[in-house]
Amino acid sequence: MDNKLYLVIMAGGVGSRFWPVSRQNKPKQFLDIMGTGKSFIRHTYERFADYIPASNVLVVTNSAYADLVAEHLPELDRSQILCEPIGRNTAPCIAYAAFRLAALDPEATMIVTPADHLILDENEFRANIAECVEFARGNGSLMTLGIKPSRPDTGYGYIQISNREGISQVRTFTEKPNLTLAQSFVASGEFVWNSGIFVWQNTTILQELKNYLPGTFSLFWAEKELFNTPAEEEAIARIYPQCKSISIDYGVLEHSSQVYVRCCDFGWSDLGTWASLYQNSYKDEQGNSLDRGVITSNTTNCLVRTPEEKLAVIDGLDDYIVIDTDDVLLIYPKSKEQEIKQVTTRLQLEDGEKYL
Amino acid sequence: MDNKLYLVIMAGGVGSRFWPVSRQNKPKQFLDIMGTGKSFIRHTYERFADYIPASNVLVVTNSAYADLVAEHLPELDRSQILCEPIGRNTAPCIAYAAFRLAALDPEATMIVTPADHLILDENEFRANIAECVEFARGNGSLMTLGIKPSRPDTGYGYIQISNREGISQVRTFTEKPNLTLAQSFVASGEFVWNSGIFVWQNTTILQELKNYLPGTFSLFWAEKELFNTPAEEEAIARIYPQCKSISIDYGVLEHSSQVYVRCCDFGWSDLGTWASLYQNSYKDEQGNSLDRGVITSNTTNCLVRTPEEKLAVIDGLDDYIVIDTDDVLLIYPKSKEQEIKQVTTRLQLEDGEKYL
Repeated sequence: MDNKLYLVIMAGGVGSRFWPVSRQNKPKQFLDIMGTGKSFIRHTYERFADYIPASNVLVVTNSAYADLVAEHLPELDRSQILCEPIGRNTAPCIAYAAFRLAALDPEATMIVTPADHLILDENEFRANIAECVEFARGNGSLMTLGIKPSRPDTGYGYIQISNREGISQVRTFTEKPNLTLAQSFVASGEFVWNSGIFVWQNTTILQELKNYLPGTFSLFWAEKELFNTPAEEEAIARIYPQCKSISIDYGVLEHSSQVYVRCCDFGWSDLGTWASLYQNSYKDEQGNSLDRGVITSNTTNCLVRTPEEKLAVIDGLDDYIVIDTDDVLLIYPKSKEQEIKQVTTRLQLEDGEKYL
Repeated sequence: MDNKLYLVIMAGGVGSRFWPVSRQNKPKQFLDIMGTGKSFIRHTYERFADYIPASNVLVVTNSAYADLVAEHLPELDRSQILCEPIGRNTAPCIAYAAFRLAALDPEATMIVTPADHLILDENEFRANIAECVEFARGNGSLMTLGIKPSRPDTGYGYIQISNREGISQVRTFTEKPNLTLAQSFVASGEFVWNSGIFVWQNTTILQELKNYLPGTFSLFWAEKELFNTPAEEEAIARIYPQCKSISIDYGVLEHSSQVYVRCCDFGWSDLGTWASLYQNSYKDEQGNSLDRGVITSNTTNCLVRTPEEKLAVIDGLDDYIVIDTDDVLLIYPKSKEQEIKQVTTRLQLEDGEKYL
């Protein structure tokens, strides 16, 4: 256990991309969408539990999900669940955690991780994290974990690196490139995916927030005495509406000269889409990823998810996702998944909110 | 009201063909599969309610469904629900009703109808029935209602007639012909579909049962004093296991010289398959028959049925049936519907009875 090491789990996402399984009142981080028996947030917590004490974990989430966090992580005290009144992207989220940590422990080192990613090789991951912690502490740098890309995925951010192995200084950030660009990135060997997992000393991130997001920083600074006191919630209620909504990548990392990336290969996916879930699932000889109780014939390359105890009988589908929940049935070509968003938008307009 | 006119509704079917909506514990006759707001058996009852008093209605069903019948037809006394301990096809069913009627009213005229057919033109139907009643009473004949065929359907029985209009003597019966034969039948103009709806005086059918099914007849005859008494149920328990399982068509109508057919055209379907339900349903411009709450794109010629309040989002299907129930989801090409039976058979073998 390293008592100066703190874990910040970002769990505020409303995650509509696994609709209709994910819902506004139960987004992805609280789901066991892989069927492992544990939610994503639970897996995220346990991934660090061997070396970060439960008392050193903070979860930043929307206040609407505080009870869900407490339910999934009963080891935490309610004070460790940092509630955002509204979502303002990752920069204010990390600023909030940093000001809380500053009040708790001036020597804190912070690991920031999304609550809902898939990581397959946990030993490799742990070794990478340890290396990043050491580097961040030794050099006062902002460490990002970059993922060796296995394909020209256009859904991820790319980081240009200077060394292909180990730790290197970051050259450029590119958000979701088009396919041609992604292909050239992957071919060059000079780019890694941005995992959204970061390691830094709390003093470093506070300094860089001050340098590159002075407006946001000063909002928090003005109330800094109130963090880790009963008045913190009211302070946050004053601060958040005034914060600019911006990611830590855009707001700080793209500007700071302290940013380094560790090139990693620990079997990572942000599982942002049904197709990526399919990619990471066990598939039978017909290429189908099926729940129990699904009987198929002439069916190939499909992802089928059904409620427990439900029987599904399917014939003649290729490359479809079939997602059945208590109140929504989705049957959609896997390759057209991005269009589902149009459906949910339409539902919003047409009084279909209860299905979102 | 015609007090000598009695209606016998045959409602014993276990009807697996609308699986997974129809179930062993709730077969088709008790379902509102067309979404009209009323079950098939209720529609059947109401079709006659203007001119047959409720007290003149008998329903023959399996004892397992007696409560369901009472629930759907609260106008009936429990004594009007004739319970078969086991299914023995239509000849014993009609014999049972005939012996009950013999005890009730020696001058009864019986209309026999399945509980689960679709009839669109109820006025035309009523006029045809009236004509058949008059003819049956005047001539002591066994009247069947034949349907002018609109296509060479291989799922129906065909009756060869001598006159193309009105009432004519029956020349031949042919059960479910192959397609070539069905095509020649329809082309000839000499054949009508056998609707399974019959009209006869009770004395006539009893006489013909005696002539052509003497074994079955004598089983009932031996207990005839017990019909319409408290001992009837025990008598039936003795009779039924000894009865040969045979249809009234095979057992009596194909042999009797008293059989006449009324050539009818009242918009009839036995709705024996999802495809026939699709055929008889309202379809949108894309040829889809959809429940409320179904959103489709690039989807044509599909039948989609979902539970109330459930949303379905479907893209890219053509000529499919999608049937979603609380515990079963069926996605199947409409043209391959007959294969679903193999699935239900497999379920029977593999401990899946609860889904049947």
